[in-house]
Amino acid sequence: MNGATITFMRYFLVIGNDAVTEPFHLNGLPNAGRMDILCRCTAQSLFLSHGIRRDVVVYLVLKGLPGPTKIIKIRGDEVRSMAPDERNIGGLIRKALGMDVDYYWKKSSPGIYIAQRNFPSLLEDISHKIVYLREDGKDVREVAPLLKDCLFILGDHRGVVKDTEELILEKSSFLISLSPLSLQADQCITLLNSELDRLG
Amino acid sequence: MNGATITFMRYFLVIGNDAVTEPFHLNGLPNAGRMDILCRCTAQSLFLSHGIRRDVVVYLVLKGLPGPTKIIKIRGDEVRSMAPDERNIGGLIRKALGMDVDYYWKKSSPGIYIAQRNFPSLLEDISHKIVYLREDGKDVREVAPLLKDCLFILGDHRGVVKDTEELILEKSSFLISLSPLSLQADQCITLLNSELDRLG
Repeated sequence: MNGATITFMRYFLVIGNDAVTEPFHLNGLPNAGRMDILCRCTAQSLFLSHGIRRDVVVYLVLKGLPGPTKIIKIRGDEVRSMAPDERNIGGLIRKALGMDVDYYWKKSSPGIYIAQRNFPSLLEDISHKIVYLREDGKDVREVAPLLKDCLFILGDHRGVVKDTEELILEKSSFLISLSPLSLQADQCITLLNSELDRLG
Repeated sequence: MNGATITFMRYFLVIGNDAVTEPFHLNGLPNAGRMDILCRCTAQSLFLSHGIRRDVVVYLVLKGLPGPTKIIKIRGDEVRSMAPDERNIGGLIRKALGMDVDYYWKKSSPGIYIAQRNFPSLLEDISHKIVYLREDGKDVREVAPLLKDCLFILGDHRGVVKDTEELILEKSSFLISLSPLSLQADQCITLLNSELDRLG
């Protein structure tokens, strides 16, 4: 992708139901409200074999303790010195969580921004078509060409709580399914990226 | 998958060109010859959203220092208490590397075995059809129904060295490609599992 022309963008949003909103121990990512899941989702969104996808933006919604909710935004076209291992990405998230934040995006590292906002407020600002991933959705392979420039919303191991899901469904253009089995969020992102790659 | 009938098996083999053959620090998986890659490949081979794939066997070939080569075998139908985060899987690999080993498989944890063997010797013992993943291979979607009960061979970030590749090509039934882009080994495994899941 490095240097390649970007024909469309991909936006991934992962809801971390328990993900902590303060700096955490890098030796215990799962204990930080399953921060390991958000790290893996970030890696699978951004990394190719030898490079970063410049056409990807990742939103991580951290809804855990002590709160209030914070959102981390990662722009593939600006990221520098990120490695795909969980500890490296966890370190970048931890650094962001150490900053004083408010409603407006503040940069913590190249390509990494943080704000103290909740999910509905973020959704208000987003103008992309919204795609929600759920097992009873339409097979991604039937609708892939329609999925350019979309925001894909995924839950973590706890899924998406009812209130949030109602809000998403109200705003969604598509409800899609990726697999006959129930997969982890990071695996869903890999499959989505692959479908979009095949669009050329 | 838990309790589901197994209709065919999947075998993944990942070559860790630099992966160390002695216990390593869990805080520095990338420094242990990119052990982080092997941990991610293991997670993507075995994990579903809430369960382990019992129809998967993973081979990790550790070709790094101090040597000689060791191979770790992980059986999905026997694994207990494995979590999908890199540090957890790294801990299980480290425990295996702390054992005295010889040519014969020795169990280090439930479902995890280790032996001091090299790749050609392992290949001699394997009777499954061999599938090699390379970017100039046939599109996986054209041949997926033929890929049941196969061993899929992947390289790490350094790929597969020439001698090893010649040996693989000699024994391969298929040369397949997963994507128009060059992906990481763990991403390839996710895509393979997904294609096989669609076979039902």
